[in-house]
Amino acid sequence: MIEVGPNSYGKSTIRLVKVVRGETPHRVRDLTIAIALEGDFAASYRDGDNSAVIATDTMKNTCYALAGEHLTGSIEDFAIVLGRHFLEAGSEVELARVSIAEHAWRPIGDAPDAFRRDASETRTTNVSVTNDGPWVEAGVADLSVMKTTRSSFAGFPRDRFTTLAETDDRIMATKVRASWAYARGAELDFDASFVAVRSTFLDAFADHDSESVQHSIWVIGKAILERHPEVDEVSMSLPNLHHWTVDLGPFGIENDREVYVSTTEPHGLIEATIRRSDG
Amino acid sequence: MIEVGPNSYGKSTIRLVKVVRGETPHRVRDLTIAIALEGDFAASYRDGDNSAVIATDTMKNTCYALAGEHLTGSIEDFAIVLGRHFLEAGSEVELARVSIAEHAWRPIGDAPDAFRRDASETRTTNVSVTNDGPWVEAGVADLSVMKTTRSSFAGFPRDRFTTLAETDDRIMATKVRASWAYARGAELDFDASFVAVRSTFLDAFADHDSESVQHSIWVIGKAILERHPEVDEVSMSLPNLHHWTVDLGPFGIENDREVYVSTTEPHGLIEATIRRSDG
Amino acid sequence: MIEVGPNSYGKSTIRLVKVVRGETPHRVRDLTIAIALEGDFAASYRDGDNSAVIATDTMKNTCYALAGEHLTGSIEDFAIVLGRHFLEAGSEVELARVSIAEHAWRPIGDAPDAFRRDASETRTTNVSVTNDGPWVEAGVADLSVMKTTRSSFAGFPRDRFTTLAETDDRIMATKVRASWAYARGAELDFDASFVAVRSTFLDAFADHDSESVQHSIWVIGKAILERHPEVDEVSMSLPNLHHWTVDLGPFGIENDREVYVSTTEPHGLIEATIRRSDG
Amino acid sequence: MIEVGPNSYGKSTIRLVKVVRGETPHRVRDLTIAIALEGDFAASYRDGDNSAVIATDTMKNTCYALAGEHLTGSIEDFAIVLGRHFLEAGSEVELARVSIAEHAWRPIGDAPDAFRRDASETRTTNVSVTNDGPWVEAGVADLSVMKTTRSSFAGFPRDRFTTLAETDDRIMATKVRASWAYARGAELDFDASFVAVRSTFLDAFADHDSESVQHSIWVIGKAILERHPEVDEVSMSLPNLHHWTVDLGPFGIENDREVYVSTTEPHGLIEATIRRSDG
Repeated sequence: MIEVGPNSYGKSTIRLVKVVRGETPHRVRDLTIAIALEGDFAASYRDGDNSAVIATDTMKNTCYALAGEHLTGSIEDFAIVLGRHFLEAGSEVELARVSIAEHAWRPIGDAPDAFRRDASETRTTNVSVTNDGPWVEAGVADLSVMKTTRSSFAGFPRDRFTTLAETDDRIMATKVRASWAYARGAELDFDASFVAVRSTFLDAFADHDSESVQHSIWVIGKAILERHPEVDEVSMSLPNLHHWTVDLGPFGIENDREVYVSTTEPHGLIEATIRRSDG
Repeated sequence: MIEVGPNSYGKSTIRLVKVVRGETPHRVRDLTIAIALEGDFAASYRDGDNSAVIATDTMKNTCYALAGEHLTGSIEDFAIVLGRHFLEAGSEVELARVSIAEHAWRPIGDAPDAFRRDASETRTTNVSVTNDGPWVEAGVADLSVMKTTRSSFAGFPRDRFTTLAETDDRIMATKVRASWAYARGAELDFDASFVAVRSTFLDAFADHDSESVQHSIWVIGKAILERHPEVDEVSMSLPNLHHWTVDLGPFGIENDREVYVSTTEPHGLIEATIRRSDG
Repeated sequence: MIEVGPNSYGKSTIRLVKVVRGETPHRVRDLTIAIALEGDFAASYRDGDNSAVIATDTMKNTCYALAGEHLTGSIEDFAIVLGRHFLEAGSEVELARVSIAEHAWRPIGDAPDAFRRDASETRTTNVSVTNDGPWVEAGVADLSVMKTTRSSFAGFPRDRFTTLAETDDRIMATKVRASWAYARGAELDFDASFVAVRSTFLDAFADHDSESVQHSIWVIGKAILERHPEVDEVSMSLPNLHHWTVDLGPFGIENDREVYVSTTEPHGLIEATIRRSDG
Repeated sequence: MIEVGPNSYGKSTIRLVKVVRGETPHRVRDLTIAIALEGDFAASYRDGDNSAVIATDTMKNTCYALAGEHLTGSIEDFAIVLGRHFLEAGSEVELARVSIAEHAWRPIGDAPDAFRRDASETRTTNVSVTNDGPWVEAGVADLSVMKTTRSSFAGFPRDRFTTLAETDDRIMATKVRASWAYARGAELDFDASFVAVRSTFLDAFADHDSESVQHSIWVIGKAILERHPEVDEVSMSLPNLHHWTVDLGPFGIENDREVYVSTTEPHGLIEATIRRSDG
């Protein structure tokens, strides 16, 4: 027998800009939205029966239609509104996932109506809505950070294929993708929580002595969990973007941790979740 | 209490080219490899203890070092060799995942030593090796396909935000990412199986009348499972890359399914696994 | 005094797909079009006077509107039609540049209505239309090619910063962007000329012994000019995508031109025009 | 007869990071460098004679080798040093072009050794060095800006393919690539000039009422030339990234310049140079 296993469908890369004109300066909200639905959709696969298949075009329309009234606060709140809408829109829908990335725009000087994009960081949210209510993750992406010292990597095992030297002072550079899950059912000011957790992230990154990328994930994740009781777990996906010291010896030039080659290929990739345990 | 949850680490985007010179024409193997290890690595996070952390640089070296002797057949076989090596390399390693993408190069005419890249499709594999042996998925990515007729979408529910018209003749275009899992423990000629499954994929895509992307996934997945007993399940991630008929009416020009706007944003996204059931 | 210097304006990335249904199999034309106009547009800059500024939205509409009747042969012919249209559309227009990239789709097996994209190469054209008539360049882009032997690089000057060893046998790999200009006023079958010149390109690439990328440009360009009298000049932009032999000596493994690291950063970049001279 | 026409060769995408450790906080310089040489290199093409061809690998080494001593101030000054070096390095070199993009890193809080990348803008320079001395262009790239009001587009000609409505209040959004040429031979503080010109750019962008993208280029270019006598000409390449008002009428929702679709394909593209004239 052949069956439909896990499945989801939806609309991705919905690009929505809202200009809030009642304030000075205006406020620009620039979102990329993805909607995905899960539920009892096997008939749409097996029988080509679309009677339960909310068109993905309708999903797109809905995002634009609800933005006017409901995109007034955090992206998490807007995602909850969208998720609830789609959960109620079809009786077969059991879970609606709404993912939103917000791209920041800052006023230019004192201008009321001119903006520049701050591309240094993308704020993200993933909200899953079921009949048990919403489950909210917040996060950041595209955030490149670097430690110019206080990063080491030593004590690792050596085998016949190991050529890497131990180091007690290397550059650590990464492009952060991190998300944290809020406790279910908590009543939160999502904007305030985002600002606070993000600040802890950067503080912890800057403050610690790193023994490895793994160690940094622990230190940062632990700091977030200790300082923010509303957070249940923190997940990070950190590429280790190697910066290799250039050997200038052949040219008679000393290079004491000054000149580096910045690389992206290949890169280490370290992914982990730090969470509260029952213990 | 705070603990380390699910985690993995490894090296990504290892770019390896091997030229097999003992044949005429030469053979070019062009791989992008990613290695990821899972196991009892909590101490590396919590304590900065790297004594079990095989350096990702060593992983890279190992790929190059083993390519000479072991990259002689399918990428699946090479991935199994690499996965077993890393499973044995560290006592804390419980699972080694090896992902390989192979980029095809074809001889130019009859030349023995000149090649052009066939960028129309990337062959992929994901192999997970544990003490229970390897688990092998094969697949394709970057494969753009289109049906110029025999694709419809109708019978979907309509609500106040629905503006999409029903259609019994639209273009269906997608960029395929598909993978299929081979039954555990099967002794397979992975190259032969790949060629056969891929052929079924394209045949089924070309042959069927599509009621929706979901329906197409079912038809193709079912065909693969029916014709290839060595396959246990098939997963697809298919963007629906909309082609909208241009309204040329304002210019006094008829446009009967002839001229389209090709778009990528937004796109539908349909993901599902078709599998054998116990029933 | 301040003035408007060289300037152009237009529409880019117009994505147009045409399905020719009167044939079996259907034929898919998939184009990305850019239009740019030059002429006496200084008033639009200085005075915000748009009376001569054909809207770029109109340019887009025009491409779709004219595709039905006029996109029946080569992209060069369609570009000439578009260029002439825009030259005549505004009295201030002195030059209309039309650039078209065509993405290839091939039938899947014998299917009349199913296609897969051949992403191995993009066919391009740049047509400039003035009152003196059209000037036509054809070309290819995104064509990755490799020589696995018969490529050397030696005899270059050495200074204190030179560490590169001479080699008489390296991999040469590049991603070709090439274009060739047809003699003005020639009556050509652009499809036939394209096929012929492209074939010469690949033959010459495969056949020659390369002393450097520069030398290869000469050999290929010269072959095209010698065999195709309708071509006046050939321009190439070739990145030298280095493939470095991996040193496996530390692992006790010999590596005689077998295993390479494929790289993209940094890369050499060699650009030149080979042309007929009056001499 | 066949000859070598215009040509250049060099090394692109040299990724160099320098950490200046003698300051608190450290300073991170993150550059992407391209070198291109022009001159009497025809023999390298025609005869495969590499005796004048400084290896592009040597160019790369030279950038790293000279960074320690000479990358102490502006990227323009470093580019001049590099350009002079390559002009002198080979007797056939007639022009050395050095292009540098600098990626900004800002300290995290008060940390002396932790940084985040400011990806909102890339500072660029193109320096051409000949025996007549250097010619210096400075610029910005990747700078996304938006006007939420005071942008109109009307008075353009209408033909049978024109459907665009006139508007006196649209969003204007673009991703700026701009460069300005400094007067030859001027003794400049390139960092101070960059900051000043860039500030004028943003001020002028924010302040003016736009009749079109062309008009905006004029207003901004004129402001730069008027306020900065050291600048001879300003060139801009501005995509018009259309934001379309969503028609929410079918859903009974008013949308008065509030909710937009943000698009990138197709886009307008306006390119012009504003310069001082002799008049």
